[in-house]
Amino acid sequence: MRVGIIGGGQLGRMLVHAGQDLGIECTTLDPAADSPAAKVGPSIVGAYDDPAALDRLAAVSDVVTYEFENVPVETAHSLADRLPVYPAATSLETGQDRLAEKTTFTEVGLAVPMFAAVEDLASLEAAVEAVGLPAVLKTRRLGYDGKGQAVIRRIELLEDAWRAIGEVPAICEAFVPFDREVSIIAVRSRDGDVRCWPLVENHHREGILRLSLAPASGAAALQAAAEERVRALMERLDHVGVLTIELFVAGESLLGNEMAPRVHNSGHWTIEGAQTSQFENHLRAVCGLPLGDTDARGHAAMLNVIGREPDPQAVLAFPWAHLHRYGKAPREGRKLGHITICGDDEGTVRERALQVSTLLPIPEPWPI
Amino acid sequence: MRVGIIGGGQLGRMLVHAGQDLGIECTTLDPAADSPAAKVGPSIVGAYDDPAALDRLAAVSDVVTYEFENVPVETAHSLADRLPVYPAATSLETGQDRLAEKTTFTEVGLAVPMFAAVEDLASLEAAVEAVGLPAVLKTRRLGYDGKGQAVIRRIELLEDAWRAIGEVPAICEAFVPFDREVSIIAVRSRDGDVRCWPLVENHHREGILRLSLAPASGAAALQAAAEERVRALMERLDHVGVLTIELFVAGESLLGNEMAPRVHNSGHWTIEGAQTSQFENHLRAVCGLPLGDTDARGHAAMLNVIGREPDPQAVLAFPWAHLHRYGKAPREGRKLGHITICGDDEGTVRERALQVSTLLPIPEPWPI
Repeated sequence: MRVGIIGGGQLGRMLVHAGQDLGIECTTLDPAADSPAAKVGPSIVGAYDDPAALDRLAAVSDVVTYEFENVPVETAHSLADRLPVYPAATSLETGQDRLAEKTTFTEVGLAVPMFAAVEDLASLEAAVEAVGLPAVLKTRRLGYDGKGQAVIRRIELLEDAWRAIGEVPAICEAFVPFDREVSIIAVRSRDGDVRCWPLVENHHREGILRLSLAPASGAAALQAAAEERVRALMERLDHVGVLTIELFVAGESLLGNEMAPRVHNSGHWTIEGAQTSQFENHLRAVCGLPLGDTDARGHAAMLNVIGREPDPQAVLAFPWAHLHRYGKAPREGRKLGHITICGDDEGTVRERALQVSTLLPIPEPWPI
Repeated sequence: MRVGIIGGGQLGRMLVHAGQDLGIECTTLDPAADSPAAKVGPSIVGAYDDPAALDRLAAVSDVVTYEFENVPVETAHSLADRLPVYPAATSLETGQDRLAEKTTFTEVGLAVPMFAAVEDLASLEAAVEAVGLPAVLKTRRLGYDGKGQAVIRRIELLEDAWRAIGEVPAICEAFVPFDREVSIIAVRSRDGDVRCWPLVENHHREGILRLSLAPASGAAALQAAAEERVRALMERLDHVGVLTIELFVAGESLLGNEMAPRVHNSGHWTIEGAQTSQFENHLRAVCGLPLGDTDARGHAAMLNVIGREPDPQAVLAFPWAHLHRYGKAPREGRKLGHITICGDDEGTVRERALQVSTLLPIPEPWPI
């Protein structure tokens, strides 16, 4: 089986690695010749909407998938005319538009913060009136890692926020005083089998994920509800592959924040911390293979390495640290690698994560 | 850090994978352009004694290691004149000569079956007289997977055995009625730190490893003795990297059978089954990085896939099976992949191994 992967970042790289063990030949497509994935397997250099590059990808693939959600929908449609594309364009379209995303969440029974569509300043005013203050204004498209967002705390700053996000179609949401952020990562096979990993607790700084803990502490009571929602969402989208929903936890309630129709940063811990990794199960799903167990193996923490890399010697001096480097040049705010820590109990893992954190430029205060 | 690896088989491939995560750039050297390792990373095509190929390898390496023990010693010496080679030639030389190997075992306090050197028919007669019948005649060099060996059960068949092994310098050993075979896999860093994985129980058929179980059942009492011996051996050889000793267990005694100065088939389970895999720790050692924990994560079984591959669909239908395919064409007796099974207890792992075995052409009877 040959899989074409649109995107050659670290997610593509980890998919390629998983494929190599399974005998699945992955080829990545990325505009950069030195992408992380190009360093570990065959790659095609080209834009995501370059017909010639897509032809070349299709020629070496039995099925196509992607590692980021901003793949042009036309690309997915154009490829789908020739060969199977999983997840299908519906998942992409939903994930690319915060309004469609939130609407779909509500349709499958997943509660969301109150929201309203924003087209212009007048509709923003109406939206703020509806959802109250503070509110969060988010572009409908192309937002990630906290980009394309503005918090509106006072009505006088409404115009500033509108300008800050570039005066583009947007969604205005109630600012929810949530207790914490978690994510549910699930995978659905071609024949509809669904498996979910345990809920992950996520800690962001400056809009970027810094730390994930799995299984999320004391979240057993939320697991069934989260699984029910993600299953309903995947069924509605007829999604094949991994899908992630980021959720806010407010008291005993789960609120849908956003989805990613792909493997996810908050699932990197599954390489060492789960019976089957998200990368392997994504490939199994899109290739029509049976899914692997998603149970956790003890407890895990995943710390992102952002902006600059610590000395590997110092990281590996912790004999329980698993270092993953992506082969990328350092740049502020860039994800360069991650470190996974496993342990038999949550306390050990938290303590170890704190030790490793001293090597990383994580903005204070330490999240946990 | 850049590591040159002599040999591009499956061991080289798994080293390359481990290196990619650590940011260690591995380049393999192999006579075959389509070697398993060449499919996952940069490679040089050339003979192991081709000076031009060795020059090219040296040019892209900060340190050189190897993935099989029959690397020409001259190759190791030639490279060592230019850059560090780990493990050093002493380990290679010892591992390539069964007489040196057994002699070194005894020198570090590891008991061995009674043995004698054989140069010709006359010395073979003397050797059999010394060690008794049945005896095992083994070529001193280039034996692996049961090749280059003949069992002598009756004195009349002595000449047949001598012809069978090709009338080359040999070693004649007492045939030991052992209870089972185990291996100790250990790693030593450049600064002398030593870590050992738990003893592994190995089952061979037709001279080829079929099944490993780790930790070896009821072997806790033997662990300390095995660790003491392997440590002494590595110190004597000033070995850097992974080293494996295959041992016979006879009652409460360990007898040294053979060593491999490299990562070993009986250590493949460490990828999922141990805190740090043998591949990662080998690279850490040769690169001068700190070693990772070698504790087992529960119990594991590893089944070799030999000769022909089972349908991946059938293997992966066991949701707990970890499939590793090497990208090799099928051929009788050839190692094409392996399947690792993990579980919380030994009984579960044995039961699962039995289930997977039904998909494999393992000669009857099932080993366990």
